[in-house]
Amino acid sequence: MAKKHILIVPGDGIGQEVTTVGKQVLDRIAEKFGHEFTYDEALIGHVAIEATGDPLPEETLVKMRASDAILFGAVGHPKYDNDPSAKVRPEQGLLRMRKELGLYANLRPIKLFDELLEASSIKPEILKGCDILFFRELTGDVYFGKRERLDDGNTAYDTMIYSKYEVERIARKAFEAARTRSKKLMSVDKANVLESSRLWREVIQKLAPEYPDVEVEHQFIDAAAMLLIKDPRRFDVVVTGNLFGDILTDEASQIAGSMGMLASASVGDSTGVYEPIHGSAHDITGKGVANPLASVLSAALLLDISFGLKAESEAIIAAVDAVLKAGFRTRDIANSETPADKILGTDAMGAELLKNL
Amino acid sequence: MAKKHILIVPGDGIGQEVTTVGKQVLDRIAEKFGHEFTYDEALIGHVAIEATGDPLPEETLVKMRASDAILFGAVGHPKYDNDPSAKVRPEQGLLRMRKELGLYANLRPIKLFDELLEASSIKPEILKGCDILFFRELTGDVYFGKRERLDDGNTAYDTMIYSKYEVERIARKAFEAARTRSKKLMSVDKANVLESSRLWREVIQKLAPEYPDVEVEHQFIDAAAMLLIKDPRRFDVVVTGNLFGDILTDEASQIAGSMGMLASASVGDSTGVYEPIHGSAHDITGKGVANPLASVLSAALLLDISFGLKAESEAIIAAVDAVLKAGFRTRDIANSETPADKILGTDAMGAELLKNL
Ligand SMILES: CC(C)[C@H](C(=O)O)[C@@H](O)C(=O)O
Ligand SMILES: CC(C)[C@H](C(=O)O)[C@@H](O)C(=O)O
Repeated sequence: MAKKHILIVPGDGIGQEVTTVGKQVLDRIAEKFGHEFTYDEALIGHVAIEATGDPLPEETLVKMRASDAILFGAVGHPKYDNDPSAKVRPEQGLLRMRKELGLYANLRPIKLFDELLEASSIKPEILKGCDILFFRELTGDVYFGKRERLDDGNTAYDTMIYSKYEVERIARKAFEAARTRSKKLMSVDKANVLESSRLWREVIQKLAPEYPDVEVEHQFIDAAAMLLIKDPRRFDVVVTGNLFGDILTDEASQIAGSMGMLASASVGDSTGVYEPIHGSAHDITGKGVANPLASVLSAALLLDISFGLKAESEAIIAAVDAVLKAGFRTRDIANSETPADKILGTDAMGAELLKNL
Repeated sequence: MAKKHILIVPGDGIGQEVTTVGKQVLDRIAEKFGHEFTYDEALIGHVAIEATGDPLPEETLVKMRASDAILFGAVGHPKYDNDPSAKVRPEQGLLRMRKELGLYANLRPIKLFDELLEASSIKPEILKGCDILFFRELTGDVYFGKRERLDDGNTAYDTMIYSKYEVERIARKAFEAARTRSKKLMSVDKANVLESSRLWREVIQKLAPEYPDVEVEHQFIDAAAMLLIKDPRRFDVVVTGNLFGDILTDEASQIAGSMGMLASASVGDSTGVYEPIHGSAHDITGKGVANPLASVLSAALLLDISFGLKAESEAIIAAVDAVLKAGFRTRDIANSETPADKILGTDAMGAELLKNL
């Protein structure tokens, strides 16, 4: 029996709706497998700015540090997107959280559910059997380098920066994962242009002999973005920087048919954070139609990675599979052939899922 | 009758093979339409390093400046990719050429030939009717910012930098193109994180009222990379920075089924450069199997944009269409149903094309 304290951080937009279902699933697992999970909740992003003026209030950070794992929603608000001059922004909360908690490794598994093979815009015969695990570096790169306005505001720069130890620690995680899978690692950079990418490539090349069983392939980000569509099965374990990882994993979400199905784990020095890769989606917020499965699968990752509860994690994945096999869909993964009575809202999809747990 | 001087710059890898066909097509056009084209040739990239030690020899630059337009091949060599510490690199020649000639606007049309609808890994029903024109900024961004090694070589940075005038001049080209098409412009940035992107977005927002007939949409690069697969028809005219444009246009090449079909124009202050978006492709160099159609379509762009010879340009596109309709394919655009005798090498494809001109 595990005794664990989980912090729920719904954040903005559909974050609240989907983490509600994620928490229900965790609750059911605790009950079924005889664990004791306690919960707390905290603010981040736009809702935190509204309440406290700070996108990552001190109270939230304290609660995060005191938790065994964090189930996270989303962060962002259109208000700031259209106002490039806003000084305080929801995303600052997210980025500061990653830095403060030392969450340098973002794992994004792209796993296809057979039932959804047709939901993708990519041909099913290209996708079949595709299974990718991305390692996106999360606390370095142009996300955290110095940025500034110059020339009376007429010039702006950001600094894309990496140190060898930052590349090494994420690369080791990726090499180790490759060992447990098909023993292939693709590293993505832009070493034909960028100095930070040449440093990245040097570190990977230097580590490779320590993992002689792993075959390493280097790709430029432009080629990788192209190959991911052309031949997704060529990808297995992929390691890349913060910015290229942001782009490549969002692109890869289309392999899975919808962002609504993809979970991610951010881990590093302390508490892990588990979140959907979809964003706050304000266009559908409050309508009760958001797909909760990415949050549910985030809960599954949480149990597996932070608590080592493999069977529990697999029970959740099996339940998701069962619900899909029974034909249930949220709007984002439905198609023209889905019968109307099988298209469920957020809560109804959660309820179906619980029936299968 | 036009009298023009064209510089052929084959560069590395398959560059030589494909520009040979591109030049044959230009020759035939001159003959057919009664123009007088004269030619010269110059070195760039790896071949220039081998011959002179410099990836962009002074002699090449002089010839470029003296030409009315440039038909370009490709640049790059695997030797340097695996040696992150190489000081002289083929790509430096390409980047310096762009800067020296002031080629700040890179136009990449993604046009589908009906015959190749099935060649893409994306479902034909998602693609049908898709027609995108990218404007990639080409002389700024992290490609030309300061870069350096620090801490005894243990840290490296690159500077992502934009000034307002750089954004404005490419944006105006894109706005004007949008006017002649569906009056929709998508601008892609990462303004939720990057200061240079916030400056980018500010400039676009400030220009928008001057083009009241054009509807502007802003997307983050991660979302754009995802939407391009999910719903490519949502894209019409797209404007973005150098790095994001590099990634997005390579990704978009998969819409057209193969990079082997895509041409690009780099224009700005002086002579325009016309080149395939595929690279040097050393894996197939010298085998005579490279697809020459991107070079041929680059020649078509050259005639249209640099010389204003619209009918001549359209004649080339019609010939490409005819050859595809007749069932001829190079290896990269063939599929399992293509009869063996319809799969042509580079020169044979060129010969078929000339028959149709
Ligand atoms: C919201 C944004 C700052 C964030 C990022 O770019 O990291 C998001 O896109 C993500 O991938 O988690
Ligand atoms: C070869 C490389 C430097 C170049 C770039 O990144 O600009 C290429 O990918 C391109 O798109 O023309």
